[in-house]
Amino acid sequence: MELLTDAQALTRWSRARRASGGGIGFVPTMGALHAGHIALIHAARQQCAHVVASIFVNPTQFGPNEDFSRYPRTLEADQAMLTAAGCDALYLPEVREIYPEGFQTRIQLPEISAGLCGAVRPGHFDGVALVVTILLNRVQPDVAFFGLKDYQQFLLIERLVTDLAMPLRVVGVPTVRESDGLAMSSRNRYLNPEERQRAGALYRALLAARDLRRAGEGSPELLEGVAREVLHAAGIERVEYVAVRAARTLLKVATVTDDEDPVMLLAVRLGSARLIDNMVLSREDGA
Amino acid sequence: MELLTDAQALTRWSRARRASGGGIGFVPTMGALHAGHIALIHAARQQCAHVVASIFVNPTQFGPNEDFSRYPRTLEADQAMLTAAGCDALYLPEVREIYPEGFQTRIQLPEISAGLCGAVRPGHFDGVALVVTILLNRVQPDVAFFGLKDYQQFLLIERLVTDLAMPLRVVGVPTVRESDGLAMSSRNRYLNPEERQRAGALYRALLAARDLRRAGEGSPELLEGVAREVLHAAGIERVEYVAVRAARTLLKVATVTDDEDPVMLLAVRLGSARLIDNMVLSREDGA
Repeated sequence: MELLTDAQALTRWSRARRASGGGIGFVPTMGALHAGHIALIHAARQQCAHVVASIFVNPTQFGPNEDFSRYPRTLEADQAMLTAAGCDALYLPEVREIYPEGFQTRIQLPEISAGLCGAVRPGHFDGVALVVTILLNRVQPDVAFFGLKDYQQFLLIERLVTDLAMPLRVVGVPTVRESDGLAMSSRNRYLNPEERQRAGALYRALLAARDLRRAGEGSPELLEGVAREVLHAAGIERVEYVAVRAARTLLKVATVTDDEDPVMLLAVRLGSARLIDNMVLSREDGA
Repeated sequence: MELLTDAQALTRWSRARRASGGGIGFVPTMGALHAGHIALIHAARQQCAHVVASIFVNPTQFGPNEDFSRYPRTLEADQAMLTAAGCDALYLPEVREIYPEGFQTRIQLPEISAGLCGAVRPGHFDGVALVVTILLNRVQPDVAFFGLKDYQQFLLIERLVTDLAMPLRVVGVPTVRESDGLAMSSRNRYLNPEERQRAGALYRALLAARDLRRAGEGSPELLEGVAREVLHAAGIERVEYVAVRAARTLLKVATVTDDEDPVMLLAVRLGSARLIDNMVLSREDGA
Protein backbone atom coordinates (compact mmCIF):
# COMPACT_ATOMS: atom_id res chain seq x y z
CA MET A 1 0.00 0.00 0.00
CA GLU A 2 1.31 3.40 -1.03
CA LEU A 3 1.56 6.06 1.70
CA LEU A 4 0.55 9.54 0.46
CA THR A 5 1.62 12.01 3.10
CA ASP A 6 0.81 15.21 1.24
CA ALA A 7 -1.51 16.63 -1.39
CA GLN A 8 1.14 16.55 -4.12
CA ALA A 9 1.64 12.81 -3.68
CA LEU A 10 -2.12 12.26 -3.59
CA THR A 11 -2.70 14.29 -6.75
CA ARG A 12 0.07 12.42 -8.54
CA TRP A 13 -1.36 9.04 -7.46
CA SER A 14 -4.90 10.04 -8.35
CA ARG A 15 -3.99 11.44 -11.79
CA ALA A 16 -2.00 8.36 -12.76
CA ARG A 17 -4.82 6.03 -11.68
CA ARG A 18 -7.46 8.08 -13.47
CA ALA A 19 -5.38 7.99 -16.64
CA SER A 20 -5.07 4.20 -16.39
CA GLY A 21 -8.89 3.85 -16.19
CA GLY A 22 -11.10 1.60 -14.13
CA GLY A 23 -12.28 4.09 -11.55
CA ILE A 24 -11.08 5.28 -8.15
CA GLY A 25 -12.89 4.28 -4.97
CA PHE A 26 -12.36 6.42 -1.88
CA VAL A 27 -12.91 5.52 1.78
CA PRO A 28 -12.45 8.53 4.09
CA THR A 29 -11.91 7.57 7.75
CA MET A 30 -10.71 8.98 11.06
CA GLY A 31 -8.56 5.90 11.68
CA ALA A 32 -8.98 3.57 14.68
CA LEU A 33 -10.13 1.13 12.06
CA HIS A 34 -12.37 -1.87 12.67
CA ALA A 35 -14.29 -4.39 10.59
CA GLY A 36 -16.84 -1.71 9.64
CA HIS A 37 -14.14 0.27 7.86
CA ILE A 38 -12.79 -2.85 6.24
CA ALA A 39 -16.25 -3.56 4.81
CA LEU A 40 -15.98 -0.14 3.13
CA ILE A 41 -12.61 -1.10 1.64
CA HIS A 42 -14.06 -4.40 0.42
CA ALA A 43 -17.01 -2.61 -1.20
CA ALA A 44 -14.60 -0.20 -2.92
CA ARG A 45 -12.38 -3.10 -3.96
CA GLN A 46 -15.36 -4.79 -5.62
CA GLN A 47 -16.56 -1.71 -7.50
CA CYS A 48 -13.36 0.13 -8.41
CA ALA A 49 -10.01 -0.68 -9.99
CA HIS A 50 -8.16 1.59 -7.55
CA VAL A 51 -8.87 2.06 -3.84
CA VAL A 52 -7.58 4.88 -1.67
CA ALA A 53 -8.42 5.47 2.00
CA SER A 54 -7.69 8.52 4.11
CA ILE A 55 -7.08 8.86 7.83
CA PHE A 56 -7.71 12.33 9.20
CA VAL A 57 -9.11 13.10 12.65
CA ASN A 58 -10.95 16.22 11.58
CA PRO A 59 -10.90 18.89 14.29
CA THR A 60 -13.80 20.91 12.84
CA GLN A 61 -16.34 18.16 13.45
CA PHE A 62 -15.62 17.91 17.19
CA GLY A 63 -17.22 20.26 19.70
CA PRO A 64 -15.07 21.98 22.36
CA ASN A 65 -16.06 19.43 25.03
CA GLU A 66 -15.92 16.37 22.81
CA ASP A 67 -13.32 13.65 22.42
CA PHE A 68 -11.01 15.11 19.74
CA SER A 69 -7.87 14.87 21.86
CA ARG A 70 -8.52 11.37 23.18
CA TYR A 71 -9.96 9.99 19.94
CA PRO A 72 -8.02 6.72 19.40
CA ARG A 73 -5.00 6.97 17.09
CA THR A 74 -3.80 3.51 15.98
CA LEU A 75 -1.92 4.24 12.78
CA GLU A 76 0.28 1.13 12.67
CA ALA A 77 -2.61 -1.26 13.17
CA ASP A 78 -4.69 0.75 10.69
CA GLN A 79 -2.04 0.44 8.01
CA ALA A 80 -1.77 -3.31 8.53
CA MET A 81 -5.55 -3.74 8.26
CA LEU A 82 -5.78 -1.61 5.11
CA THR A 83 -2.92 -3.48 3.47
CA ALA A 84 -4.51 -6.82 4.31
CA ALA A 85 -7.85 -5.62 2.89
CA GLY A 86 -6.23 -4.76 -0.43
CA CYS A 87 -6.29 -0.98 -0.14
CA ASP A 88 -3.92 0.53 -2.74
CA ALA A 89 -3.07 3.83 -1.11
CA LEU A 90 -3.52 5.76 2.13
CA TYR A 91 -3.71 9.56 2.27
CA LEU A 92 -2.51 10.94 5.62
CA PRO A 93 -2.88 14.72 5.55
CA GLU A 94 -1.72 17.13 8.22
CA VAL A 95 -4.27 19.56 9.65
CA ARG A 96 -2.45 22.45 7.96
CA GLU A 97 -2.90 20.83 4.57
CA ILE A 98 -6.65 20.50 4.97
CA TYR A 99 -7.09 23.88 6.67
CA PRO A 100 -4.33 26.15 5.37
CA GLU A 101 -3.56 29.55 6.85
CA GLY A 102 -6.38 32.00 6.23
CA PHE A 103 -8.95 29.20 5.81
CA GLN A 104 -12.46 30.54 6.35
CA THR A 105 -14.95 28.63 4.20
CA ARG A 106 -17.97 27.10 5.93
CA ILE A 107 -20.56 24.69 4.57
CA GLN A 108 -23.97 24.05 6.08
CA LEU A 109 -26.91 21.79 5.30
CA PRO A 110 -29.33 23.30 7.77
CA GLU A 111 -32.32 21.01 7.25
CA ILE A 112 -30.64 17.64 7.44
CA SER A 113 -28.38 18.87 10.29
CA ALA A 114 -31.18 20.27 12.39
CA GLY A 115 -32.18 17.32 14.59
CA LEU A 116 -30.85 14.13 16.15
CA CYS A 117 -27.03 14.18 16.33
CA GLY A 118 -27.03 17.69 14.84
CA ALA A 119 -29.06 18.99 17.78
CA VAL A 120 -26.83 17.28 20.35
CA ARG A 121 -23.57 18.17 18.59
CA PRO A 122 -23.91 21.74 17.25
CA GLY A 123 -21.53 22.36 14.36
CA HIS A 124 -20.67 18.68 13.97
CA PHE A 125 -22.27 18.22 10.57
CA ASP A 126 -20.87 21.54 9.30
CA GLY A 127 -17.42 20.11 10.03
CA VAL A 128 -18.30 16.82 8.35
CA ALA A 129 -19.63 18.56 5.22
CA LEU A 130 -16.51 20.72 5.07
CA VAL A 131 -13.90 17.98 5.42
CA VAL A 132 -15.75 15.61 3.09
CA THR A 133 -15.92 18.32 0.41
CA ILE A 134 -12.21 19.05 0.76
CA LEU A 135 -11.21 15.37 0.73
CA LEU A 136 -13.44 14.58 -2.25
CA ASN A 137 -11.98 17.52 -4.18
CA ARG A 138 -8.45 16.40 -3.37
CA VAL A 139 -8.93 12.73 -4.19
CA GLN A 140 -11.33 13.20 -7.14
CA PRO A 141 -12.77 9.68 -6.81
CA ASP A 142 -15.42 8.12 -9.00
CA VAL A 143 -17.13 6.54 -6.01
CA ALA A 144 -16.95 7.36 -2.29
CA PHE A 145 -17.96 4.88 0.41
CA PHE A 146 -19.53 5.72 3.78
CA GLY A 147 -20.92 3.56 6.56
CA LEU A 148 -24.66 3.50 7.15
CA LYS A 149 -24.01 3.29 10.90
CA ASP A 150 -23.69 7.08 10.67
CA TYR A 151 -27.05 7.31 8.97
CA GLN A 152 -27.68 11.04 9.32
CA GLN A 153 -24.14 11.72 8.12
CA PHE A 154 -24.73 9.49 5.12
CA LEU A 155 -27.87 11.38 4.09
CA LEU A 156 -26.03 14.68 4.61
CA ILE A 157 -23.19 13.58 2.34
CA GLU A 158 -25.58 12.34 -0.34
CA ARG A 159 -27.36 15.71 -0.26
CA LEU A 160 -24.07 17.64 -0.24
CA VAL A 161 -22.71 15.79 -3.26
CA THR A 162 -26.00 16.28 -5.14
CA ASP A 163 -26.34 19.95 -4.20
CA LEU A 164 -22.76 20.89 -5.07
CA ALA A 165 -22.87 18.71 -8.22
CA MET A 166 -19.71 16.86 -7.32
CA PRO A 167 -18.88 14.42 -10.12
CA LEU A 168 -18.97 11.15 -8.19
CA ARG A 169 -21.26 8.48 -6.78
CA VAL A 170 -21.87 8.02 -3.05
CA VAL A 171 -22.35 4.48 -1.75
CA GLY A 172 -23.62 3.53 1.72
CA VAL A 173 -22.31 0.30 3.22
CA PRO A 174 -24.37 -1.66 5.80
CA THR A 175 -23.33 -1.56 9.45
CA VAL A 176 -21.02 -4.32 10.63
CA ARG A 177 -21.94 -5.68 14.07
CA GLU A 178 -20.28 -7.60 16.88
CA SER A 179 -21.69 -11.04 17.76
CA ASP A 180 -24.17 -9.48 20.22
CA GLY A 181 -25.29 -6.97 17.60
CA LEU A 182 -23.33 -3.94 18.84
CA ALA A 183 -22.49 -1.77 15.84
CA MET A 184 -18.74 -1.58 15.24
CA SER A 185 -17.42 1.84 16.23
CA SER A 186 -14.04 3.29 17.08
CA ARG A 187 -15.67 4.66 20.22
CA ASN A 188 -16.53 1.18 21.51
CA ARG A 189 -12.94 1.24 22.82
CA TYR A 190 -14.07 3.71 25.48
CA LEU A 191 -16.33 1.06 27.08
CA ASN A 192 -15.20 -0.96 30.09
CA PRO A 193 -16.19 -4.66 30.11
CA GLU A 194 -19.37 -4.09 32.07
CA GLU A 195 -20.45 -1.19 29.80
CA ARG A 196 -19.53 -3.25 26.77
CA GLN A 197 -21.83 -5.99 27.93
CA ARG A 198 -24.73 -3.56 28.41
CA ALA A 199 -24.10 -1.93 25.01
CA GLY A 200 -25.68 -4.89 23.23
CA ALA A 201 -29.02 -3.41 24.30
CA LEU A 202 -28.84 -0.81 21.49
CA TYR A 203 -29.25 -3.49 18.88
CA ARG A 204 -31.90 -5.31 20.90
CA ALA A 205 -33.83 -2.04 21.21
CA LEU A 206 -33.83 -1.64 17.42
CA LEU A 207 -34.90 -5.26 16.94
CA ALA A 208 -37.73 -4.85 19.45
CA ALA A 209 -39.03 -1.83 17.52
CA ARG A 210 -38.74 -3.70 14.24
CA ASP A 211 -40.61 -6.70 15.63
CA LEU A 212 -43.37 -4.43 16.92
CA ARG A 213 -43.68 -2.82 13.51
CA ARG A 214 -43.87 -6.24 11.91
CA ALA A 215 -46.70 -7.01 14.30
CA GLY A 216 -48.53 -4.08 12.70
CA GLU A 217 -47.74 -1.17 15.03
CA GLY A 218 -47.78 2.20 13.24
CA SER A 219 -47.34 4.68 16.08
CA PRO A 220 -43.84 6.23 16.17
CA GLU A 221 -44.32 6.95 19.89
CA LEU A 222 -45.07 3.31 20.70
CA LEU A 223 -42.16 2.08 18.57
CA GLU A 224 -39.86 4.55 20.32
CA GLY A 225 -41.31 3.53 23.65
CA VAL A 226 -40.49 -0.15 23.28
CA ALA A 227 -36.93 0.70 22.26
CA ARG A 228 -36.51 2.96 25.27
CA GLU A 229 -37.74 0.18 27.54
CA VAL A 230 -35.08 -2.19 26.27
CA LEU A 231 -32.39 0.44 26.87
CA HIS A 232 -33.65 1.18 30.39
CA ALA A 233 -33.93 -2.51 31.22
CA ALA A 234 -30.21 -2.77 30.40
CA GLY A 235 -29.43 0.09 32.75
CA ILE A 236 -28.77 2.63 29.99
CA GLU A 237 -30.23 5.80 31.48
CA ARG A 238 -28.61 8.56 29.45
CA VAL A 239 -30.62 8.31 26.23
CA GLU A 240 -30.04 11.31 23.95
CA TYR A 241 -32.70 10.36 21.47
CA VAL A 242 -34.76 7.46 20.19
CA ALA A 243 -36.53 8.56 17.04
CA VAL A 244 -38.58 7.05 14.24
CA ARG A 245 -38.18 9.16 11.11
CA ALA A 246 -38.79 9.13 7.37
CA ALA A 247 -35.86 7.19 5.97
CA ARG A 248 -34.98 9.63 3.15
CA THR A 249 -35.60 13.01 4.80
CA LEU A 250 -35.35 12.27 8.56
CA LEU A 251 -38.57 14.24 8.96
CA LYS A 252 -40.99 13.16 11.68
CA VAL A 253 -43.78 10.83 10.61
CA ALA A 254 -47.22 11.00 12.19
CA THR A 255 -47.95 7.35 11.44
CA VAL A 256 -45.81 4.63 9.99
CA THR A 257 -47.51 3.35 6.83
CA ASP A 258 -46.82 0.58 4.36
CA ASP A 259 -45.69 3.14 1.75
CA GLU A 260 -42.21 3.70 3.13
CA ASP A 261 -40.17 1.88 5.73
CA PRO A 262 -39.12 4.35 8.42
CA VAL A 263 -35.75 4.37 10.11
CA MET A 264 -35.23 4.25 13.87
CA LEU A 265 -32.20 6.16 15.11
CA LEU A 266 -30.84 6.22 18.63
CA ALA A 267 -28.02 7.79 20.59
CA VAL A 268 -26.99 7.07 24.17
CA ARG A 269 -24.22 7.85 26.60
CA LEU A 270 -22.62 4.87 28.24
CA GLY A 271 -19.67 5.47 30.54
CA SER A 272 -17.45 7.92 28.70
CA ALA A 273 -18.69 6.83 25.29
CA ARG A 274 -21.40 8.24 23.07
CA LEU A 275 -22.92 5.46 20.96
CA ILE A 276 -25.29 5.69 18.00
CA ASP A 277 -27.09 3.11 15.95
CA ASN A 278 -30.01 2.86 13.54
CA MET A 279 -32.12 0.40 11.65
CA VAL A 280 -34.64 0.65 8.84
CA LEU A 281 -37.78 -0.84 10.38
CA SER A 282 -38.55 -3.03 7.42
CA ARG A 283 -41.64 -5.21 7.28
CA GLU A 284 -39.75 -7.91 5.41
CA ASP A 285 -36.57 -9.75 6.21
CA GLY A 286 -33.43 -8.87 4.35
CA ALA A 287 -34.20 -5.16 3.87
CA MET B 1 -20.43 27.47 -30.76
CA GLU B 2 -22.10 24.48 -29.14
CA LEU B 3 -25.18 25.15 -26.98
CA LEU B 4 -25.29 23.00 -23.84
CA THR B 5 -28.74 23.34 -22.37
CA ASP B 6 -28.47 20.76 -19.62
CA ALA B 7 -25.96 19.10 -17.33
CA GLN B 8 -25.81 15.90 -19.36
CA ALA B 9 -24.77 17.80 -22.49
CA LEU B 10 -22.24 19.79 -20.46
CA THR B 11 -20.72 16.68 -18.89
CA ARG B 12 -20.47 14.99 -22.27
CA TRP B 13 -18.79 18.06 -23.79
CA SER B 14 -16.44 18.46 -20.85
CA ARG B 15 -15.42 14.78 -20.74
CA ALA B 16 -14.69 14.64 -24.45
CA ARG B 17 -12.58 17.83 -24.30
CA ARG B 18 -10.69 16.63 -21.24
CA ALA B 19 -9.92 13.35 -22.97
CA SER B 20 -8.59 15.22 -26.01
CA GLY B 21 -6.16 17.20 -23.82
CA GLY B 22 -5.13 20.83 -23.87
CA GLY B 23 -7.13 22.11 -20.96
CA ILE B 24 -10.59 23.59 -20.46
CA GLY B 25 -11.04 27.29 -19.73
CA PHE B 26 -14.33 28.39 -18.13
CA VAL B 27 -15.94 31.83 -18.07
CA PRO B 28 -19.05 31.95 -15.87
CA THR B 29 -21.30 34.96 -16.54
CA MET B 30 -24.79 36.28 -15.89
CA GLY B 31 -25.15 37.27 -19.55
CA ALA B 32 -25.80 40.84 -20.73
CA LEU B 33 -22.32 40.54 -22.12
CA HIS B 34 -19.98 43.43 -22.88
CA ALA B 35 -16.32 43.91 -23.78
CA GLY B 36 -15.31 43.01 -20.20
CA HIS B 37 -16.74 39.52 -20.61
CA ILE B 38 -15.16 39.19 -24.04
CA ALA B 39 -11.77 39.96 -22.49
CA LEU B 40 -12.37 36.92 -20.25
CA ILE B 41 -13.10 34.77 -23.31
CA HIS B 42 -9.95 36.05 -24.99
CA ALA B 43 -7.86 35.27 -21.92
CA ALA B 44 -9.33 31.75 -21.82
CA ARG B 45 -8.77 31.36 -25.56
CA GLN B 46 -5.09 32.24 -25.07
CA GLN B 47 -4.50 29.85 -22.16
CA CYS B 48 -6.72 26.86 -22.94
CA ALA B 49 -7.45 24.58 -25.87
CA HIS B 50 -11.18 24.54 -25.09
CA VAL B 51 -13.32 27.44 -23.88
CA VAL B 52 -16.76 27.18 -22.34
CA ALA B 53 -18.86 30.05 -20.98
CA SER B 54 -22.03 29.88 -18.91
CA ILE B 55 -24.94 32.28 -18.67
CA PHE B 56 -26.96 31.93 -15.49
CA VAL B 57 -28.63 34.80 -13.65
CA ASN B 58 -28.19 33.30 -10.20
CA PRO B 59 -31.14 34.06 -7.92
CA THR B 60 -29.30 33.26 -4.68
CA GLN B 61 -26.87 36.17 -5.06
CA PHE B 62 -29.61 38.81 -5.33
CA GLY B 63 -31.26 40.30 -2.24
CA PRO B 64 -35.06 40.54 -2.05
CA ASN B 65 -35.01 44.22 -3.07
CA GLU B 66 -32.32 43.94 -5.69
CA ASP B 67 -32.51 43.82 -9.48
CA PHE B 68 -32.87 40.07 -10.14
CA SER B 69 -36.10 40.40 -12.13
CA ARG B 70 -34.99 43.39 -14.22
CA TYR B 71 -31.39 42.22 -14.69
CA PRO B 72 -30.81 42.52 -18.47
CA ARG B 73 -31.34 39.31 -20.46
CA THR B 74 -29.87 39.61 -23.97
CA LEU B 75 -29.31 36.00 -24.96
CA GLU B 76 -29.23 36.43 -28.74
CA ALA B 77 -26.68 39.23 -28.65
CA ASP B 78 -24.69 37.29 -26.04
CA GLN B 79 -24.48 34.23 -28.27
CA ALA B 80 -23.34 36.32 -31.24
CA MET B 81 -20.60 37.97 -29.13
CA LEU B 82 -19.38 34.65 -27.72
CA THR B 83 -19.29 33.05 -31.15
CA ALA B 84 -17.36 36.01 -32.57
CA ALA B 85 -14.89 35.81 -29.68
CA GLY B 86 -14.16 32.15 -30.40
CA CYS B 87 -15.96 30.58 -27.48
CA ASP B 88 -16.45 26.85 -28.11
CA ALA B 89 -19.49 26.13 -25.98
CA LEU B 90 -22.14 27.87 -23.90
CA TYR B 91 -23.80 26.23 -20.88
CA LEU B 92 -27.31 27.58 -20.26
CA PRO B 93 -28.71 25.87 -17.17
CA GLU B 94 -32.22 26.24 -15.81
CA VAL B 95 -32.61 27.29 -12.17
CA ARG B 96 -33.96 23.83 -11.31
CA GLU B 97 -30.78 22.20 -12.62
CA ILE B 98 -28.53 24.33 -10.41
CA TYR B 99 -30.84 24.20 -7.39
CA PRO B 100 -32.75 20.89 -7.58
CA GLU B 101 -35.68 20.04 -5.34
CA GLY B 102 -34.59 19.64 -1.73
CA PHE B 103 -31.50 21.80 -2.25
CA GLN B 104 -30.22 23.14 1.09
CA THR B 105 -26.45 23.51 1.03
CA ARG B 106 -24.99 26.89 2.00
CA ILE B 107 -21.44 28.15 1.67
CA GLN B 108 -19.99 31.11 3.53
CA LEU B 109 -16.64 32.89 3.63
CA PRO B 110 -17.38 35.12 6.59
CA GLU B 111 -14.16 37.13 6.72
CA ILE B 112 -13.84 38.15 3.10
CA SER B 113 -17.62 38.72 2.90
CA ALA B 114 -17.84 40.88 5.99
CA GLY B 115 -17.29 44.39 4.63
CA LEU B 116 -17.73 46.53 1.52
CA CYS B 117 -20.26 44.95 -0.90
CA GLY B 118 -20.85 42.15 1.61
CA ALA B 119 -22.04 44.65 4.21
CA VAL B 120 -24.34 46.45 1.75
CA ARG B 121 -25.65 43.24 0.14
CA PRO B 122 -26.17 40.67 2.91
CA GLY B 123 -26.08 37.12 1.56
CA HIS B 124 -24.74 38.22 -1.83
CA PHE B 125 -21.36 36.55 -1.50
CA ASP B 126 -22.89 33.39 -0.02
CA GLY B 127 -24.88 33.11 -3.24
CA VAL B 128 -21.80 33.79 -5.35
CA ALA B 129 -19.73 31.17 -3.50
CA LEU B 130 -22.53 28.64 -3.89
CA VAL B 131 -23.17 29.08 -7.60
CA VAL B 132 -19.48 29.25 -8.45
CA THR B 133 -18.85 25.99 -6.57
CA ILE B 134 -21.72 24.27 -8.37
CA LEU B 135 -20.70 25.58 -11.80
CA LEU B 136 -17.04 24.67 -11.29
CA ASN B 137 -18.03 21.16 -10.20
CA ARG B 138 -20.26 20.74 -13.23
CA VAL B 139 -17.79 22.11 -15.78
CA GLN B 140 -14.61 20.68 -14.20
CA PRO B 141 -12.36 23.26 -15.91
CA ASP B 142 -8.61 23.51 -15.61
CA VAL B 143 -8.75 27.30 -15.41
CA ALA B 144 -11.61 29.64 -14.50
CA PHE B 145 -11.61 33.34 -15.45
CA PHE B 146 -13.15 36.18 -13.45
CA GLY B 147 -13.10 39.94 -13.92
CA LEU B 148 -11.12 42.06 -11.47
CA LYS B 149 -13.84 44.73 -11.66
CA ASP B 150 -15.58 42.59 -9.01
CA TYR B 151 -12.49 42.66 -6.85
CA GLN B 152 -13.98 41.43 -3.59
CA GLN B 153 -15.73 38.63 -5.49
CA PHE B 154 -12.44 37.68 -7.12
CA LEU B 155 -10.66 37.37 -3.75
CA LEU B 156 -13.60 35.38 -2.40
CA ILE B 157 -13.44 32.93 -5.28
CA GLU B 158 -9.67 32.56 -4.98
CA ARG B 159 -10.11 31.79 -1.28
CA LEU B 160 -13.04 29.43 -1.92
CA VAL B 161 -11.11 27.42 -4.50
CA THR B 162 -8.08 27.21 -2.21
CA ASP B 163 -10.10 26.32 0.89
CA LEU B 164 -12.18 23.62 -0.80
CA ALA B 165 -9.13 22.33 -2.70
CA MET B 166 -10.85 22.51 -6.05
CA PRO B 167 -8.50 21.18 -8.72
CA LEU B 168 -8.23 24.24 -10.95
CA ARG B 169 -6.53 27.59 -11.36
CA VAL B 170 -8.33 30.92 -10.91
CA VAL B 171 -7.29 33.82 -13.15
CA GLY B 172 -8.28 37.46 -12.68
CA VAL B 173 -8.64 39.57 -15.83
CA PRO B 174 -8.15 43.36 -15.71
CA THR B 175 -11.16 45.64 -15.92
CA VAL B 176 -12.14 46.85 -19.38
CA ARG B 177 -13.16 50.52 -19.46
CA GLU B 178 -15.15 52.84 -21.69
CA SER B 179 -13.31 55.77 -23.27
CA ASP B 180 -14.02 57.99 -20.22
CA GLY B 181 -12.76 55.29 -17.88
CA LEU B 182 -16.12 53.91 -16.72
CA ALA B 183 -15.70 50.21 -15.94
CA MET B 184 -17.74 48.03 -18.28
CA SER B 185 -20.72 46.58 -16.44
CA SER B 186 -24.03 45.04 -17.43
CA ARG B 187 -25.63 47.49 -15.01
CA ASN B 188 -24.37 50.52 -16.96
CA ARG B 189 -27.50 49.92 -19.09
CA TYR B 190 -29.57 51.25 -16.20
CA LEU B 191 -27.99 54.74 -16.58
CA ASN B 192 -29.74 57.49 -18.52
CA PRO B 193 -27.50 59.71 -20.67
CA GLU B 194 -27.02 62.32 -17.97
CA GLU B 195 -26.17 59.70 -15.32
CA ARG B 196 -23.89 57.93 -17.79
CA GLN B 197 -21.98 61.16 -18.25
CA ARG B 198 -21.54 61.64 -14.51
CA ALA B 199 -20.48 57.98 -14.03
CA GLY B 200 -17.03 58.74 -15.44
CA ALA B 201 -16.28 60.30 -12.04
CA LEU B 202 -15.76 56.83 -10.50
CA TYR B 203 -12.63 56.31 -12.56
CA ARG B 204 -11.45 59.88 -12.01
CA ALA B 205 -11.90 59.39 -8.26
CA LEU B 206 -9.66 56.32 -8.35
CA LEU B 207 -7.06 58.16 -10.45
CA ALA B 208 -7.07 61.10 -8.05
CA ALA B 209 -6.36 58.75 -5.13
CA ARG B 210 -3.61 57.03 -7.08
CA ASP B 211 -2.00 60.33 -7.99
CA LEU B 212 -2.10 61.42 -4.36
CA ARG B 213 -0.46 58.19 -3.31
CA ARG B 214 2.22 58.69 -5.93
CA ALA B 215 2.81 62.11 -4.44
CA GLY B 216 3.68 60.30 -1.19
CA GLU B 217 0.39 60.32 0.73
CA GLY B 218 0.08 57.36 3.13
CA SER B 219 -3.13 58.14 5.01
CA PRO B 220 -6.07 55.97 3.93
CA GLU B 221 -8.47 58.66 5.16
CA LEU B 222 -6.89 61.34 2.99
CA LEU B 223 -6.81 59.04 -0.05
CA GLU B 224 -10.46 58.20 0.51
CA GLY B 225 -11.23 61.87 1.04
CA VAL B 226 -9.87 62.98 -2.30
CA ALA B 227 -11.84 60.23 -4.08
CA ARG B 228 -15.03 61.27 -2.32
CA GLU B 229 -14.46 64.87 -3.38
CA VAL B 230 -14.27 63.85 -7.03
CA LEU B 231 -17.52 61.90 -6.70
CA HIS B 232 -19.29 64.74 -4.95
CA ALA B 233 -18.03 67.26 -7.49
CA ALA B 234 -19.73 65.15 -10.17
CA GLY B 235 -22.98 65.23 -8.25
CA ILE B 236 -22.75 61.62 -7.05
CA GLU B 237 -24.19 61.88 -3.54
CA ARG B 238 -25.16 58.29 -2.70
CA VAL B 239 -21.74 56.85 -1.97
CA GLU B 240 -21.97 53.43 -0.32
CA TYR B 241 -18.28 53.18 0.42
CA VAL B 242 -14.88 54.48 -0.56
CA ALA B 243 -12.24 52.32 1.08
CA VAL B 244 -8.49 51.83 0.95
CA ARG B 245 -7.70 48.24 1.95
CA ALA B 246 -4.90 45.69 1.93
CA ALA B 247 -4.98 44.28 -1.59
CA ARG B 248 -4.80 40.59 -0.60
CA THR B 249 -6.98 40.48 2.51
CA LEU B 250 -9.22 43.58 2.19
CA LEU B 251 -8.32 44.34 5.81
CA LYS B 252 -8.08 47.97 6.86
CA VAL B 253 -4.61 49.49 6.78
CA ALA B 254 -3.52 52.11 9.30
CA THR B 255 -0.96 53.61 6.93
CA VAL B 256 -0.16 52.87 3.33
CA THR B 257 3.49 51.81 3.12
CA ASP B 258 5.87 50.98 0.31
CA ASP B 259 5.68 47.27 1.24
CA GLU B 260 2.38 46.54 -0.44
CA ASP B 261 0.22 48.50 -2.85
CA PRO B 262 -3.25 48.91 -1.37
CA VAL B 263 -6.46 48.72 -3.34
CA MET B 264 -9.12 51.42 -3.37
CA LEU B 265 -12.67 50.12 -3.76
CA LEU B 266 -15.78 52.18 -4.22
CA ALA B 267 -19.51 51.68 -4.64
CA VAL B 268 -22.13 54.30 -5.46
CA ARG B 269 -25.78 54.55 -6.39
CA LEU B 270 -26.50 56.55 -9.50
CA GLY B 271 -30.08 56.72 -10.72
CA SER B 272 -31.39 53.16 -10.48
CA ALA B 273 -27.94 51.63 -10.88
CA ARG B 274 -25.45 50.46 -8.30
CA LEU B 275 -21.92 50.85 -9.65
CA ILE B 276 -18.65 49.52 -8.26
CA ASP B 277 -15.05 49.99 -9.27
CA ASN B 278 -11.58 49.55 -7.83
CA MET B 279 -7.93 50.22 -8.53
CA VAL B 280 -4.68 49.06 -7.01
CA LEU B 281 -3.03 52.30 -5.96
CA SER B 282 0.34 51.42 -7.42
CA ARG B 283 3.35 53.69 -7.10
CA GLU B 284 4.57 52.73 -10.56
CA ASP B 285 2.90 52.84 -13.93
CA GLY B 286 1.72 49.60 -15.47
CA ALA B 287 0.89 47.88 -12.20
